[in-house]
Amino acid sequence: MTSAITSHLDPEHAGTDHASVEHASALDAADPLAGLRDSFTLPADVIYLDGNSLGALPRAVPDRIAATVTDEWGDGLIRSWNDADWINAPRRVGAKIAPLIGAAPDNVIAADSTTVNLFKVLSAALALRPRRRKIITETRNFPTDNYIAEGVIRQTGGAHRLVHADDVKTIADLLDDDVAVLMLTHVNYRDGSVHDMAGLTRAAHDAGALVIWDLAHSAGVIPLDLAGCDVDFAVGCGYKFLNGGPGAPAFLYVAPRHLGGDGQPLSGWFGHADPFGFAPHYRPAGDITQYLCGTPPVISIVALEAALDLWDGIDMRQIHAKARQLTGYFIDLVEARCGGHGLALISPRDAELRGAQVAFTHATGGHAIIAALIAEGVIGDFRAPDVLRFGFAPLYTRFVDVWHAVDRLAGILDQRRWDRPEFHLRRKVT
Amino acid sequence: MTSAITSHLDPEHAGTDHASVEHASALDAADPLAGLRDSFTLPADVIYLDGNSLGALPRAVPDRIAATVTDEWGDGLIRSWNDADWINAPRRVGAKIAPLIGAAPDNVIAADSTTVNLFKVLSAALALRPRRRKIITETRNFPTDNYIAEGVIRQTGGAHRLVHADDVKTIADLLDDDVAVLMLTHVNYRDGSVHDMAGLTRAAHDAGALVIWDLAHSAGVIPLDLAGCDVDFAVGCGYKFLNGGPGAPAFLYVAPRHLGGDGQPLSGWFGHADPFGFAPHYRPAGDITQYLCGTPPVISIVALEAALDLWDGIDMRQIHAKARQLTGYFIDLVEARCGGHGLALISPRDAELRGAQVAFTHATGGHAIIAALIAEGVIGDFRAPDVLRFGFAPLYTRFVDVWHAVDRLAGILDQRRWDRPEFHLRRKVT
Repeated sequence: MTSAITSHLDPEHAGTDHASVEHASALDAADPLAGLRDSFTLPADVIYLDGNSLGALPRAVPDRIAATVTDEWGDGLIRSWNDADWINAPRRVGAKIAPLIGAAPDNVIAADSTTVNLFKVLSAALALRPRRRKIITETRNFPTDNYIAEGVIRQTGGAHRLVHADDVKTIADLLDDDVAVLMLTHVNYRDGSVHDMAGLTRAAHDAGALVIWDLAHSAGVIPLDLAGCDVDFAVGCGYKFLNGGPGAPAFLYVAPRHLGGDGQPLSGWFGHADPFGFAPHYRPAGDITQYLCGTPPVISIVALEAALDLWDGIDMRQIHAKARQLTGYFIDLVEARCGGHGLALISPRDAELRGAQVAFTHATGGHAIIAALIAEGVIGDFRAPDVLRFGFAPLYTRFVDVWHAVDRLAGILDQRRWDRPEFHLRRKVT
Repeated sequence: MTSAITSHLDPEHAGTDHASVEHASALDAADPLAGLRDSFTLPADVIYLDGNSLGALPRAVPDRIAATVTDEWGDGLIRSWNDADWINAPRRVGAKIAPLIGAAPDNVIAADSTTVNLFKVLSAALALRPRRRKIITETRNFPTDNYIAEGVIRQTGGAHRLVHADDVKTIADLLDDDVAVLMLTHVNYRDGSVHDMAGLTRAAHDAGALVIWDLAHSAGVIPLDLAGCDVDFAVGCGYKFLNGGPGAPAFLYVAPRHLGGDGQPLSGWFGHADPFGFAPHYRPAGDITQYLCGTPPVISIVALEAALDLWDGIDMRQIHAKARQLTGYFIDLVEARCGGHGLALISPRDAELRGAQVAFTHATGGHAIIAALIAEGVIGDFRAPDVLRFGFAPLYTRFVDVWHAVDRLAGILDQRRWDRPEFHLRRKVT
């Protein structure tokens, strides 16, 4: 497999042994994004390959939170809704996410959780296609998205039907004139495979349907162009590659043509045209704030905002190039050093078709191998029933991290250090 | 009005002038809860009478947040879902709220916003009364509650109807056999008047309807007994008298008999019976966790948890007694010292019928008087169109605060210091 590793090599370091740690160091030395790692706090004894589940802590966040808590809340009290501009935080944070997803600032807002936001936009989309009864999803979509579709269907009286495509190739065939909405996650949570956003959006529109993209695993990894792809609605996560902290507020996108009207059913006061007029009836704001509901979680939202400041001036093409390089390097090293132990790659081998994560299956030891890795300081995660999943956040993951992670994985496999009773005990991980 | 002030006097200080600041100090000296103020950080130059809108910062909160951010997120990373027990934070916090509202720990959970939670429980309640079409509310209910009912009705196809009672006395008359849900806020946000929870719940049940109580302005003020009153559902706010910080997670209560079934339509993965099994279809947890939806906002929820620790061992009857005493003292002093300036009390004069807030109307100067008070360091708030609203959080409000607030109000009114152009400019306050 050494020849494959060569492809990740900067030409000027062609003299090093491609499977060596020196080669990894050379790749880091050539990485134009390497300096960004210093903007994060990472524990010294850990190799963190789970930024796709919970992003690392940006150094700027603790001080920003402390200022909001102590100065804005403690001293400013209620006045900070104006004086610290808490009131506009959801729009301000949305506008910071917008360039990462190819959207205008006024079409993105930070609010609630990804799941709640999906409820909003799916409900709004169905209302825009009142005579169509089908929602198309994938069986392998992130489960909460499909659960929410089931919830919306129960709520609207069961007139709609959720249709699961078992294979990506069959999605287009399902798009008939009874389809209201095609709802997909852009980068798959298990295997990191990427959907063709432009092509599938076009196919849905050709059938008269609307599209909703879940960007949980692509925002902050892949250059996105929601406006250019003519996407109708999107939702995404604040705590993965955007590093907003555990349970950070999520975001949502609404195409300009779909703003206004009744909008969405979670019609709370923060989405009212005049929230502080205390009128007896709901009157939708008519712009993206209509997708707010209750009072925004200020402390969590400022943490996300401070994390987003890191993206200022970053070229998403460089981020994507590094994601492809890190994931490709990991695949190559695992296949070079961990062969014969039953690991099977389920992520796409073509770097263009995967996000910043790589997954292998293992028939019997999936959970235990991850548990052994964590015990030895390499944090990946396990997804039932048999998936070992590794994320490579381009902002802070080094090539030497990849090298040492595989080195430890190889040792664990070679010596079967994973096959101990304590590593087979299932614990909840998210 | 001096005779009325006498009623707030501890007998041993009967010698002081009842309208004097020395009398206020004597009341503080006799207050068994006075020491709790030291558990809060309050700015030295402010008298804060807006804890009903945003509670003050408990001293324990900044360190708790810093530990969660720096240690649990920064060092623990994804492991903290287990190691720091983030996964159980919504139930743990719910269990800490339970004794304040007369509920069993397993019937309360912290989640989302009050408004989103109302959507959940209202939807669940309507599903339990499928053949009934009316939702009864008050015209003067907090607007977001009525807006959400409108959203649920739009979502469910318009078969339901929201009926507004214009007067509390007419509510019982509206309870016929077509009513599915009676939905009220226990303490009114504008005038602080308290509904008869036991009586109205009984009346609704007698008509075969379910009840939902919004406890935003009563949790942390009045001893509540949801279980004893046989309440079906309740929602409440984390950032008012519970001091959880701006936009803190809210809470909800579900009676044991209503747990299970489909439950609620925001059926996200955190409400699934096995969230990390990643099954293709939703299977409700069957207990209170079924009312969770997406990933909980960890940083906000630990702030609320630290704030709730203050309530450990507190007797809610003492809290309620102090709320009645503070509000009564305020009313007496305002009427004694601010007469003839057009202020009209709209809160109940009977202390048993009001929460921890007092409101006056003023025909022309409502906003400007509040703005002038804030400029002079007394923070109350204005509610359109003409309401001056003052909150008296029993945990940290002193009688001397009340005295000085009225002293400044009297000066502002006597000298018409409020009638300046800058005080008439409307700013958003929440």
